[in-house]
Amino acid sequence: MTFAPLQNDTFLRACLGQATDHTPVWLMRQAGRYLPEYCATRARAGSFMGLATNVDFATEVTLQPLARYPLDAAILFSDILTVPDAMGLGLSFQQGEGPKFERVVRDEAAVNQLAVPDMNRLRYVFDAVTSIRKALAGRVPLIGFSGSPWTLACYMVEGGGSSDYRHVKTLMYARPDLMHRVLAVNADSVAHYLNAQIDAGAQAVMVFDSWGGVLADGAFQAFSLAYTARVLGQLKRTGVDGAVVPRIVFTKGGGLWLHDMQALACDVLGLDWTMDLGRARRVLERPGTTNSIAGDAHSTSASAASDLEHPKPTALQGNIDPNVLFAPPEAIRAEVRRVLERFGPPHADAATRGVGHVFNLGHGISQFTPPEHVAHLVDEVHADSRRLRAAG
Amino acid sequence: MTFAPLQNDTFLRACLGQATDHTPVWLMRQAGRYLPEYCATRARAGSFMGLATNVDFATEVTLQPLARYPLDAAILFSDILTVPDAMGLGLSFQQGEGPKFERVVRDEAAVNQLAVPDMNRLRYVFDAVTSIRKALAGRVPLIGFSGSPWTLACYMVEGGGSSDYRHVKTLMYARPDLMHRVLAVNADSVAHYLNAQIDAGAQAVMVFDSWGGVLADGAFQAFSLAYTARVLGQLKRTGVDGAVVPRIVFTKGGGLWLHDMQALACDVLGLDWTMDLGRARRVLERPGTTNSIAGDAHSTSASAASDLEHPKPTALQGNIDPNVLFAPPEAIRAEVRRVLERFGPPHADAATRGVGHVFNLGHGISQFTPPEHVAHLVDEVHADSRRLRAAG
Repeated sequence: MTFAPLQNDTFLRACLGQATDHTPVWLMRQAGRYLPEYCATRARAGSFMGLATNVDFATEVTLQPLARYPLDAAILFSDILTVPDAMGLGLSFQQGEGPKFERVVRDEAAVNQLAVPDMNRLRYVFDAVTSIRKALAGRVPLIGFSGSPWTLACYMVEGGGSSDYRHVKTLMYARPDLMHRVLAVNADSVAHYLNAQIDAGAQAVMVFDSWGGVLADGAFQAFSLAYTARVLGQLKRTGVDGAVVPRIVFTKGGGLWLHDMQALACDVLGLDWTMDLGRARRVLERPGTTNSIAGDAHSTSASAASDLEHPKPTALQGNIDPNVLFAPPEAIRAEVRRVLERFGPPHADAATRGVGHVFNLGHGISQFTPPEHVAHLVDEVHADSRRLRAAG
Repeated sequence: MTFAPLQNDTFLRACLGQATDHTPVWLMRQAGRYLPEYCATRARAGSFMGLATNVDFATEVTLQPLARYPLDAAILFSDILTVPDAMGLGLSFQQGEGPKFERVVRDEAAVNQLAVPDMNRLRYVFDAVTSIRKALAGRVPLIGFSGSPWTLACYMVEGGGSSDYRHVKTLMYARPDLMHRVLAVNADSVAHYLNAQIDAGAQAVMVFDSWGGVLADGAFQAFSLAYTARVLGQLKRTGVDGAVVPRIVFTKGGGLWLHDMQALACDVLGLDWTMDLGRARRVLERPGTTNSIAGDAHSTSASAASDLEHPKPTALQGNIDPNVLFAPPEAIRAEVRRVLERFGPPHADAATRGVGHVFNLGHGISQFTPPEHVAHLVDEVHADSRRLRAAG
């Protein structure tokens, strides 16, 4: 497979801690219901899964936000629950209700039936990756993604969304042995899944640990972080064109565990809005203060080239509250400047690795967001981060 | 007013950082739907507000968990939304749906109508406090409580519960001037409300900042913490019997801001399960590392007697995941021991103030909790904390 050469590598450079002309920006769930054109395509597809499983529709909606805004990355249009669906749990989306699984995994018999799914059952995802990468024609890089092993387990045990995570935590506290078995299968499945996305053309991959933050201290490290580390340990480092594939790990509500996450073999840590980016940056700038509990240990004296081979977190992604987008344009722009200012002076020296910043929301964009407000956010990230570089 | 002398002051002592024979324990929402006797009383009352506004019913349900378990404190049975109800917003509870307000506060006109309510409209709460205190007959102390100014504002603007806090955050980002006005009225109302509970017999007071954790860093300090500080600055320090009234502030999801909360003029900081208690204890043990942004500054050389007059956080409350109570008894007991162990060696010297620990859940008990499991939790807290003191 050969693809058109990349014209805008700002996102990939920032992920790897390399200097950039501006702070790259993309938005979690940027192809989504806040866009009328997305709703029109979804209506044609008939259902969410109809949209996600059709290569043409998935390509179309992935590119829609790029037609409106000068975003620095595209992200595969898909769902985090494709993997448990491929395990045979029967995923469906009821209008306005969120995901539901036909079969839940709550006892030993159900756990014993779990296995890494045949990746051919997820062929529609890999085909979409290739199709989107072609359609992008090198304009910006394409991010592939998966839910984290723990986050997938939440849905597999609860059978859908939850407000209290009662069933999954009951299994975890009552039968930790079974929970570890579920998570091991999930981790190996996610690793295969992300590697297949890389083989299909993904230029970066992201693990969404959307529900890691609901765990108790101690349980997070044992049941979420350890299995994210198990995924990362199995991932390919380079893509089809030989370029390094940056890895992003996003744990909603994970700010308290940044020291632990620092030990992950990934390039970028995603943060929600509760964490001050300056404080987070100082953690990354002071390696060796971590209690290493996950992933490989990394020498702090490793060269930049070696770091590329053996990733450690050298960039932050985030972290504006998506609700800022409901404010008037001037308030949105002021909050964007505040986030850039909290991160601090941009890394300016192209010869070394610093700490990179990928601007994003701290969670998915709300379906109620006025699309014209997004333009102000993207423009202000680009304009103000260029101004900061000129001033520095 | 005179009340029977207190027989078990373990909870009050722990709140003030004084040595105790065992770690005291009570449970958020301990009088609640998981108890069949509570459901029976509620059925007789006809509705939740029928229960909360009737002094006899409120007294009855407050004492129910104490009849089952040797808890070290009672907490007033009421709701955090009584204050905005008294402001005229029209609170009701639909079966299985949570609280709803008839009128929402989303524009300047609605904000301008807000005022500190006449405390006579909350007489039923103060009467319940006195009635419960009498019925307790000195067995354990009685905790009064209120929602925090920000948490009340969430319900007042959203009109009920929310999954995204879209309306309240829109108001905050679009019209911070209006949000500050709402919060100032709320803070002064909460201060009056808690002082009246203290005058009616409450022996400790707790501010529930249930939704502080949904705010962005920066917004939390400006819109939640500053107004909790404004409440604390107005509170009476002693109760009707002349004893110090400890103040507890609980911010769900507030672990990241412990350094900021350390500046609050309260005695106890409540934590949810995401924060390691040992790590939190080390923050309290090292005063002066905080960026003081709320409340008064406190001299680290202040004597214990002066500290009682000028509170600063010297105890932690929490923080087991309520979902642990779904595990079998031995797993519950193991998790209790883990929380006690994470907090570390109990403060042993009765002559000085150390850091106290009040055992609690990290959030309200689930309605699905098997009541017999709670007995194991309470027993293990008492037994293991006595064992730790004997071993020390």
